[in-house]
Amino acid sequence: MIISSPQSMQKKALKWLKAGKSVGFVPTMGALHEGHLSLVRASKRDNDITVVSIFVNPAQFGPTEDYGSYPRSLKMDLSALKLFSVDAVFIPDVSDIYPEDFQTTVNVGKLSQPMCGKSRPVFFGGVARVVLKLFNLVMPTRAYFGLKDYQQFLIIKQLIKDLNLPVIIVPRAIIREKDGLALSSRNAYLSKEERKIAPRVYAALELGKEAAKSGKNPKQVQRIIEDHLKKNFVIDYVTVADPLTLASLKTFRGKALLAVAVWLGKTRLIDNLLVNQDTH
Amino acid sequence: MIISSPQSMQKKALKWLKAGKSVGFVPTMGALHEGHLSLVRASKRDNDITVVSIFVNPAQFGPTEDYGSYPRSLKMDLSALKLFSVDAVFIPDVSDIYPEDFQTTVNVGKLSQPMCGKSRPVFFGGVARVVLKLFNLVMPTRAYFGLKDYQQFLIIKQLIKDLNLPVIIVPRAIIREKDGLALSSRNAYLSKEERKIAPRVYAALELGKEAAKSGKNPKQVQRIIEDHLKKNFVIDYVTVADPLTLASLKTFRGKALLAVAVWLGKTRLIDNLLVNQDTH
Repeated sequence: MIISSPQSMQKKALKWLKAGKSVGFVPTMGALHEGHLSLVRASKRDNDITVVSIFVNPAQFGPTEDYGSYPRSLKMDLSALKLFSVDAVFIPDVSDIYPEDFQTTVNVGKLSQPMCGKSRPVFFGGVARVVLKLFNLVMPTRAYFGLKDYQQFLIIKQLIKDLNLPVIIVPRAIIREKDGLALSSRNAYLSKEERKIAPRVYAALELGKEAAKSGKNPKQVQRIIEDHLKKNFVIDYVTVADPLTLASLKTFRGKALLAVAVWLGKTRLIDNLLVNQDTH
Repeated sequence: MIISSPQSMQKKALKWLKAGKSVGFVPTMGALHEGHLSLVRASKRDNDITVVSIFVNPAQFGPTEDYGSYPRSLKMDLSALKLFSVDAVFIPDVSDIYPEDFQTTVNVGKLSQPMCGKSRPVFFGGVARVVLKLFNLVMPTRAYFGLKDYQQFLIIKQLIKDLNLPVIIVPRAIIREKDGLALSSRNAYLSKEERKIAPRVYAALELGKEAAKSGKNPKQVQRIIEDHLKKNFVIDYVTVADPLTLASLKTFRGKALLAVAVWLGKTRLIDNLLVNQDTH
């Protein structure tokens, strides 16, 4: 069932809630790939009802970013979702999500500052706002997010906690191509040549992981990743961070997040790896 | 029943929701007066369940404002509420509402700029955030707000619309003393002398209303109110505004809001009056 009106979506959601149904929710911007589908699969497994939303959210794109060209493939998305017999696909119009007098901002402070927040200053505010709206419309028991957008996952988790939303956030592992490239709708932008180079992002993270395991400190690990990446990419950031606070690590202790964003031509790629590390 | 844990409050709320009960919610900062009680009465009349919250919200007070001295009278508040047999009084701790890592901000943009927003820059952000949290914990069908805080009412109404909250906001008329003074917890700050002068705020608004009825334009009405107020008060603002957008009016057409904030010694008083006015 396709639902486009926010009112109808919320009415359905209230009905499910009152009927005691558990609702799993997978918010997407469409251009679905196996990463999204793994979230749908998890939702189907855990809940009575599964809702997928498809909404390319203008509020999370900066003025020079790719809102206009972001891949849209609604027909294919709907065919893919049909195979999962999801209970509702929510596809609202931009004008219904952001009516003319819309004026509310939502920001998760500290966690939005580093990493992607530096080069994309409106991004996480736009994400937090639309996810909050979608949560209020779908009223999910559980919401599913892929860990490729690790910072986004942390921010939504904090948003849920700070605003007392009765939603359980379920993170799911990054899905990769055989050659290691993390699945992303934006991979569609890559030329044949670029597509061959792109897996080197993950290769750099793997090198960083090995370096960490072999006793290098975070600064050294960061340098190793940077050195590898700069041969093929323009680096936005490389960070070795605390996976809870995203603060840069001075020493390894327990889990660490290795995360990068790079430009390959006109395409921005992000990826990350969690490593479990003893103190060095 | 007194509830202090946010988790318990939300559990109750979900139970009521699933049982199909309508829930009326009256958020307060305590120091209850007949204005609050009129909201409770309306909620009891309209809903199966009534919840009153008492929470002096530090986030809505500026650093030089009266958070510390804000009147607190929990025992009397609870006795008053007992007479109404409300279903739950929610009295959370500050540390449960704002844990150490709390970092989310919520702002209703345009409507928070004029009037009280000018002299109290953190106020409406603090209000929007706590009301959103309380809504998520109490999950009301209807929420009751007094029109003395007219700008606050508009902002919460916009917040509900912008974030797609399934809450009906119910405004209730200002309750006044016999001499016209609008009821306010802060009236407790007034000395005997000041208490005698305070009703002149409402008298000034009444003069403004008469001036409007007699054909004066908004600028003239504002001047008349100001001239009357400045004999006894330090004026924060006097505005003749559109009651939907709060924009200053150049001409009268339909409804108009006359609103003022003044200082009487160390006490800040606000009041307003809606007038229905033909074009001049």
